Amino acid sequence: MDRAKIRLFVEHPLAEGQSVDLTREQAHYLFGVMRQAVGGQVALFNGRDGEWTCEITEAGKRGGVLTCLGQAAAQLDPPDLWLMFAPIKKSRTDFIVEKAAEMGARRIVPVLTEFTNAERVRVDRLQAHAVEAAEQCGGTFVPEVADPVKLDRLLAGWDDRRIMFCDEALVGRDAALAGDGGSWAILIGPEGGFSGAERARLHGMDQAVAVSLGPRVLRADTAAVAAMTLWQDRLGDWR
Amino acid sequence: MDRAKIRLFVEHPLAEGQSVDLTREQAHYLFGVMRQAVGGQVALFNGRDGEWTCEITEAGKRGGVLTCLGQAAAQLDPPDLWLMFAPIKKSRTDFIVEKAAEMGARRIVPVLTEFTNAERVRVDRLQAHAVEAAEQCGGTFVPEVADPVKLDRLLAGWDDRRIMFCDEALVGRDAALAGDGGSWAILIGPEGGFSGAERARLHGMDQAVAVSLGPRVLRADTAAVAAMTLWQDRLGDWR
Repeated sequence: MDRAKIRLFVEHPLAEGQSVDLTREQAHYLFGVMRQAVGGQVALFNGRDGEWTCEITEAGKRGGVLTCLGQAAAQLDPPDLWLMFAPIKKSRTDFIVEKAAEMGARRIVPVLTEFTNAERVRVDRLQAHAVEAAEQCGGTFVPEVADPVKLDRLLAGWDDRRIMFCDEALVGRDAALAGDGGSWAILIGPEGGFSGAERARLHGMDQAVAVSLGPRVLRADTAAVAAMTLWQDRLGDWR
Repeated sequence: MDRAKIRLFVEHPLAEGQSVDLTREQAHYLFGVMRQAVGGQVALFNGRDGEWTCEITEAGKRGGVLTCLGQAAAQLDPPDLWLMFAPIKKSRTDFIVEKAAEMGARRIVPVLTEFTNAERVRVDRLQAHAVEAAEQCGGTFVPEVADPVKLDRLLAGWDDRRIMFCDEALVGRDAALAGDGGSWAILIGPEGGFSGAERARLHGMDQAVAVSLGPRVLRADTAAVAAMTLWQDRLGDWR
């Protein structure tokens, strides 16, 4: 199947001949904004069944129906990588969520650290950003955005998932980022860095690996993309 | 020397005891916006002499004078890496320039490709962005933003600088990104990718190396940060 240009995320199961009802917002977008009509083709994905080319079979102001013609791309799940980050100002937090969805993170966790100085985190808005990023970049998976959690509470109940954290104070090279992947989480601190206590706690965890992101100080949003690149390149599905 | 919190880029040479005149804009920023006064400390850098801690010795509405007390950080020049990219919409172009300055590119070149669909590129505005990024991220070097140039003209007069370009059509691994660095340029295509002719031409150049950025389609701004990360990690000063 050729891939349709307009891509929409839906919750509905997708399979050949399956009809999918549109929400009011999706109908408004497809028929009002994008000027589509009955007979037009749209790509749907639901995060589980790959991408499907669908035909518009009913179009109305408040809804519509699409029918699945065939699968255009297989489901591509990301590796078991979480991105945990201290929220920063709104536009840069949005950016981090967009990049995590694009680059292949499975779960996005806003983390409140000692030096976190963030506006209120609206999880529903961030989740919508993750959906939009997946729609735009051709992905078939949408990472879940978790509720914000305090770092000390998060680490108190931590299992054996490995943590890659970026330590600005680190000099020299990390040798530990090699192997076969498995379950990992990247942890990005706030603009002010981790506190001394947080850094000591992380360095004391067997699961944690500190990495350096070079001799320059990176903004938190840059550090998030750079850290995901290093992980995907060495342990993930960019290899 | 402790590092002062406010950082400003100046053109003036910096050395112990040196006086530096402020421009009207810098005086407005320091005294009007940041409420600094005579006796306050500011960090200056000029892209050549490292970072200097300076004291405000005169403060006025239209100007002011700083005196260099001592060097707070040595000059850190980036590797010989250029970032060449097809401009996209304004906010994402600004973002690419900011990230290039943060991550350690020496020169930033807007490149017009067949599928480039950009608003007019204002080099002076992009240069100001690069300065601001260096001021904010603690860097002592500011990459130069070159005038936009057409890709075919740029490649026609190309010397032996190596080119790393990101090819979405590439399957499998790049083995060529290893060695001792030297002179390189990263080339990032527009949202629509390179044209067939452009791709063929690049693949035919001895200087060029195609790399894959994983199985997902990345936006151009994400690709720029990911490509700079890979290069710095394997060939640059993050090693």
